[in-house]
Amino acid sequence: PCFKAGLICTPVCDCHLLDMGEEGPGNSVYLSERGNSIRLHEGILQEGYIQYGMDRHHDTDNPDGIINMGTSENKLCYDLLHKRLTKPDMLHINPSLLQYSDWRGHAFLREAVAKFLTRYCCSPNPLKADNVVVMNGCGSLFSCIAAVICDPKDAILIPTPFYGVITEDLHLYSDVKLFHVPLDCEADGKDNRPFRLTVRKLEEGLQRAKEEGLTIRGVILMNPHNPLAEIYSLKEMITFLEFAKRNALHAIVDEVYMLTVFDESVTFQSVLSADSLPDPQRTHIMWGMSKDFAMAGIRIGTLYTENRDLVEALAKLGSFHGVSGTTQHQVAQLLQDKEWINEEFLPENRRRLKAACSYLTGELLSMGIPFLDRPATLYVWADLRKYLQESSFEEELSLWKCFLRHKVLLSCGQAFCCSVPGWFRIVFADQQHHLQLGQYQQHS
Amino acid sequence: PCFKAGLICTPVCDCHLLDMGEEGPGNSVYLSERGNSIRLHEGILQEGYIQYGMDRHHDTDNPDGIINMGTSENKLCYDLLHKRLTKPDMLHINPSLLQYSDWRGHAFLREAVAKFLTRYCCSPNPLKADNVVVMNGCGSLFSCIAAVICDPKDAILIPTPFYGVITEDLHLYSDVKLFHVPLDCEADGKDNRPFRLTVRKLEEGLQRAKEEGLTIRGVILMNPHNPLAEIYSLKEMITFLEFAKRNALHAIVDEVYMLTVFDESVTFQSVLSADSLPDPQRTHIMWGMSKDFAMAGIRIGTLYTENRDLVEALAKLGSFHGVSGTTQHQVAQLLQDKEWINEEFLPENRRRLKAACSYLTGELLSMGIPFLDRPATLYVWADLRKYLQESSFEEELSLWKCFLRHKVLLSCGQAFCCSVPGWFRIVFADQQHHLQLGQYQQHS
Repeated sequence: PCFKAGLICTPVCDCHLLDMGEEGPGNSVYLSERGNSIRLHEGILQEGYIQYGMDRHHDTDNPDGIINMGTSENKLCYDLLHKRLTKPDMLHINPSLLQYSDWRGHAFLREAVAKFLTRYCCSPNPLKADNVVVMNGCGSLFSCIAAVICDPKDAILIPTPFYGVITEDLHLYSDVKLFHVPLDCEADGKDNRPFRLTVRKLEEGLQRAKEEGLTIRGVILMNPHNPLAEIYSLKEMITFLEFAKRNALHAIVDEVYMLTVFDESVTFQSVLSADSLPDPQRTHIMWGMSKDFAMAGIRIGTLYTENRDLVEALAKLGSFHGVSGTTQHQVAQLLQDKEWINEEFLPENRRRLKAACSYLTGELLSMGIPFLDRPATLYVWADLRKYLQESSFEEELSLWKCFLRHKVLLSCGQAFCCSVPGWFRIVFADQQHHLQLGQYQQHS
Repeated sequence: PCFKAGLICTPVCDCHLLDMGEEGPGNSVYLSERGNSIRLHEGILQEGYIQYGMDRHHDTDNPDGIINMGTSENKLCYDLLHKRLTKPDMLHINPSLLQYSDWRGHAFLREAVAKFLTRYCCSPNPLKADNVVVMNGCGSLFSCIAAVICDPKDAILIPTPFYGVITEDLHLYSDVKLFHVPLDCEADGKDNRPFRLTVRKLEEGLQRAKEEGLTIRGVILMNPHNPLAEIYSLKEMITFLEFAKRNALHAIVDEVYMLTVFDESVTFQSVLSADSLPDPQRTHIMWGMSKDFAMAGIRIGTLYTENRDLVEALAKLGSFHGVSGTTQHQVAQLLQDKEWINEEFLPENRRRLKAACSYLTGELLSMGIPFLDRPATLYVWADLRKYLQESSFEEELSLWKCFLRHKVLLSCGQAFCCSVPGWFRIVFADQQHHLQLGQYQQHS
């Protein structure tokens, strides 16, 4: 296939892309040491998005532009959202929406979120609005939680591969590190759960971190997983939460893809559906509008936690992460519209995600590319190892660059700190004619 | 007057209210040292707002609730805003508004801001959209600027009194200190500019900071000033900016009250109206929707700077401070509506502010309370020293508490780090029957 052409080996280190072929910019005399470090920080995901920003594909205006299969956005439901979001109930103004509000979010929105989560997470008891914090995106929540459960240089455990931007979420402001727990790939065609997360791996990771002298304050768990698209059962999640409890770790449970399960025979179980959590004071559940409602631009992330101290501390940082009152109103209207969610949006969204996934995985099968076959999320985790000339991250990066030269943006495994080179996350939640992997192969 | 009754002396320290009569909460075992410090941090302004939040005055629902004359909000123009914000052009959706965008703000909004500032700041040359950064409020901009021009423990110079929340904006996330330059009160009835800012005071402050071993990276200048309501001439501002240049300090110029000048014989001059700035690479101008457009709840702060390095660094932190795409659209529509701004909003807003200010200052005159007579902002800086039994911050706090017991929230000078006890900021931008200072006096 074309994307084998023109491989160039470029040194990379540690999840970061240091060189895109041009001289890197130097330190600025106007910024502090920290400021320069923040300014010069650039991951592969960010670099890819910048390249895409300068040359976006558009069917008529820029047909030769970059197709973005790297950013996890759902572009399949714009018509449904447009119809709903332009209904008259969205255009509502009252004085309190224009004034300063509770930094945890307006009470009406926190109530709507609590009811929504109670229903869709199948909570055995009604969840409480007072346990909800709303901020402008889950990245803000990660940043704030890190700031208040960790001191600078403390660390949080995370199995790899993982959605790479969490590294910046925890580090840029809060100076908190991620300690990686590698989930070795065992994809030999026999095991249907390569990259399997186990309590043993978590325990070993924690042990290693302690040996390195790090203070570990928590563990991040994603379900459905990004980028593996794996769905963990409630039973499995509880064992992970028990591991956290045994070690007095906060468990930050990211369930932002909970409504993207598109196979009706598969049931997602939120940890909020448990009769009781092993350590409710240290278990914090994140959800948001970006993925499940295809509205990344609306900037809404929510946290559910019973820990009052955490809520109080987050409220103090909330002034930096506030959401416009008018947007809070719009989101509350959506979350309360059971009929629209159940009868219109969710069934159609699932149908479209399923079709898009089938199309892309069909392409991958025809190209002989292995992948993890999962009925959830907006992407597949695909094994492109056969296209590497040698098993190295340099080779993986070259392959990523080759795709980009051919106007396809993907996310390579090293951007997710994957311990094995050659895996890519490919987003399928876009119009079929944009999912051009196969076309490139045919043309080359 | 009533607010002399029941004074209780409570120890306070350093701009913070430590005790509201109840045992302060202890450290949480669930949070880090930093997290506990963030959680337990509570200024007088925050405490007052919390009290108000639990017992808000409402003309019919809660007529005995607290009247908020402490928070700088303009409550006089809701009818004008409601009319404009419910017009059909506000209810617009397109795909890019629902997707991830440039973290500096959508290009269409940055262009609208550049044009708006060019016009209302009387810039001799068109300002550039590329020099604009939009975030969810000016507090976020303060936090980000501090993070990238300072290293932890570095400091920024600020004349006192100043809008006290800037302390938290710079410290909570970014661990940056404010170094105070006290503007001694010379209000003897002869000097019409007590608390006068001079270059000499800035130079002396910088000298003291250096002697204390601090690294000073910038100076914050507010025009019109909060809480003094003072309007500095362009000539004065240029001398302050020359001081900054001489000492290689960043000048963060906060002009968020620039359109609140309600006396038509007085002209506000933005530093952006200068033919040239002393040090354009170190001069950064803030403006936002909260004050001038009476929309604190809409969370829009803007920065104008020619410094590309700063813009790049802010863009990296922008993911934590993003604004909903739909709100960005609404704000751009407003800022582009010259006719509405010039013919409807601004003249009527000025008229109402002027009337409200006249009413409150009339009340103060009748009570024999001196104040700084300024034709701008939403508040007056009033001299209540005659009500203190002795000149101390304990006495000042007691007076503040006494007002609060009588259901009037004000801001006392120590919340703004004023060096002289007894001054209060009183917000007048509310319905006349809420401005009850005089009524309380009569009833007691």
